[in-house]
Amino acid sequence: MSGALGIIAGGGELPRAIAASARSTGRAVFVLALAGMTDDWVRDYPHETVALGELGRAMKAFRAHDCRDVTLAGKVQRPKFSEIKLDAKAVFAAPRVIAAALRGDDALLRSVVDMFEREGMRVVGAAEAAPDLIARAGIFGRVQPNAENNSDIALAFKVARAMGEFDVGQAAIVCANLTLAVEAAEGTDAMIARVVNLPEHLRGTKGKLRGVLVKAPKPIQDGKTDLPVIGVHTVRNAHAAALAGIAVEAGGALIVDRDAVVSEADRLGMFLIGVPR
Amino acid sequence: MSGALGIIAGGGELPRAIAASARSTGRAVFVLALAGMTDDWVRDYPHETVALGELGRAMKAFRAHDCRDVTLAGKVQRPKFSEIKLDAKAVFAAPRVIAAALRGDDALLRSVVDMFEREGMRVVGAAEAAPDLIARAGIFGRVQPNAENNSDIALAFKVARAMGEFDVGQAAIVCANLTLAVEAAEGTDAMIARVVNLPEHLRGTKGKLRGVLVKAPKPIQDGKTDLPVIGVHTVRNAHAAALAGIAVEAGGALIVDRDAVVSEADRLGMFLIGVPR
Repeated sequence: MSGALGIIAGGGELPRAIAASARSTGRAVFVLALAGMTDDWVRDYPHETVALGELGRAMKAFRAHDCRDVTLAGKVQRPKFSEIKLDAKAVFAAPRVIAAALRGDDALLRSVVDMFEREGMRVVGAAEAAPDLIARAGIFGRVQPNAENNSDIALAFKVARAMGEFDVGQAAIVCANLTLAVEAAEGTDAMIARVVNLPEHLRGTKGKLRGVLVKAPKPIQDGKTDLPVIGVHTVRNAHAAALAGIAVEAGGALIVDRDAVVSEADRLGMFLIGVPR
Repeated sequence: MSGALGIIAGGGELPRAIAASARSTGRAVFVLALAGMTDDWVRDYPHETVALGELGRAMKAFRAHDCRDVTLAGKVQRPKFSEIKLDAKAVFAAPRVIAAALRGDDALLRSVVDMFEREGMRVVGAAEAAPDLIARAGIFGRVQPNAENNSDIALAFKVARAMGEFDVGQAAIVCANLTLAVEAAEGTDAMIARVVNLPEHLRGTKGKLRGVLVKAPKPIQDGKTDLPVIGVHTVRNAHAAALAGIAVEAGGALIVDRDAVVSEADRLGMFLIGVPR
């Protein structure tokens, strides 16, 4: 790795965690905050705020801060194209980006990656920018999955990966071998939330946690873009849905604030596991 | 076909439509209504009401009414096993049914089919019991899908069939090549309803309908059990979610009250299409 790490930061906790991780290794960090999406933590870092579509300005800022490695992280609301102001450089790139956006989220991210690489920057995945966030294999906390959980984990990985083939979602919930929910455009939090609307005998209850949330990377992801992420709020949401635990793909998911995530899971009596592909 | 048609009737409009269809061909019909699930229409037919688990009583009633062909139709709430009273015959069959239920909805239905067949009855699919309900190929009403709709239909079939492989759901919603929703345990109506919670630029609006609902049979279905069904309420729900239309697999879906379904779609400006596999 050379120079500073440039972070194009959307919403949520992931970009902050990447910045903190890189800084903790002694590396300089420069954050390009997306207007209206990035939270206050950017004040702790050299940063500039740009709107979507200000590609020329973004390139200039990264060059000024010696960023040759750039990573994209955090939630970016899918833009309404009519509302984007395109600067001169973006106007030339835009047709490619729009074409990609029409093919799905992952295609959109890849097209942004291509744009930066054509400008001579190296786009690195969160896994490379902050390797200590990557989920390792094994059980993270004190709670062990039981036989039913392990069977549910296996089915949920199959379902999540089958959907990933079509650039749909990255997550599924299975309880007692029945798929309760599959993620699409609504996102993981909304998917978890609807499990409590299902009949009680299909799912866990406060008295008896059952079922698992699985997050797996889309098979078409190249690791440079949108790996699944879990954080403390994921654990809390899953507990509100009376799930017994969470499984992620070892090496294929990011855990933000791992210590807090593990201790929250322990406190709530839930397992956390990284499963090798 | 010989003797009367026996219909094990759950909730919803499908069993009524099958009964009416069979009667319209001059065939005798006997309805076994599931207690608490079947609606009032059964009063128009010779019928008996049984609880889930009363297998011996069901067999006896079918024999008394000369039913050698039996079809299962309508929504059956997944039972809570502790609440089922098993009669003598069912006690022997129960371990198989429970084992099947733990493997998913479709496995559960197949195990019930097996039970009847061991008793010498022929279990026929709705497609055989009421062939005029089967969706044909082609456009049903006055509205044609446009190029975007056709592309969305193709992707939604791929997604729905991929999920069907895992006995998950039978339906998906795609808009402008983005998968908005995938059905799992929540059912089609709840899946459609959540589309309106997505950001407006991802979906249709009252002023401009966009996106399609696709229902496809699970690849593991043998046609004897749970084919996807659409009815007038499906069209109304899809319109409330500002979808442009509905596509089903020709020969692989049932349309209840077809004339009413088509005229409602025409009135709402939505297309309806049966797509050959």
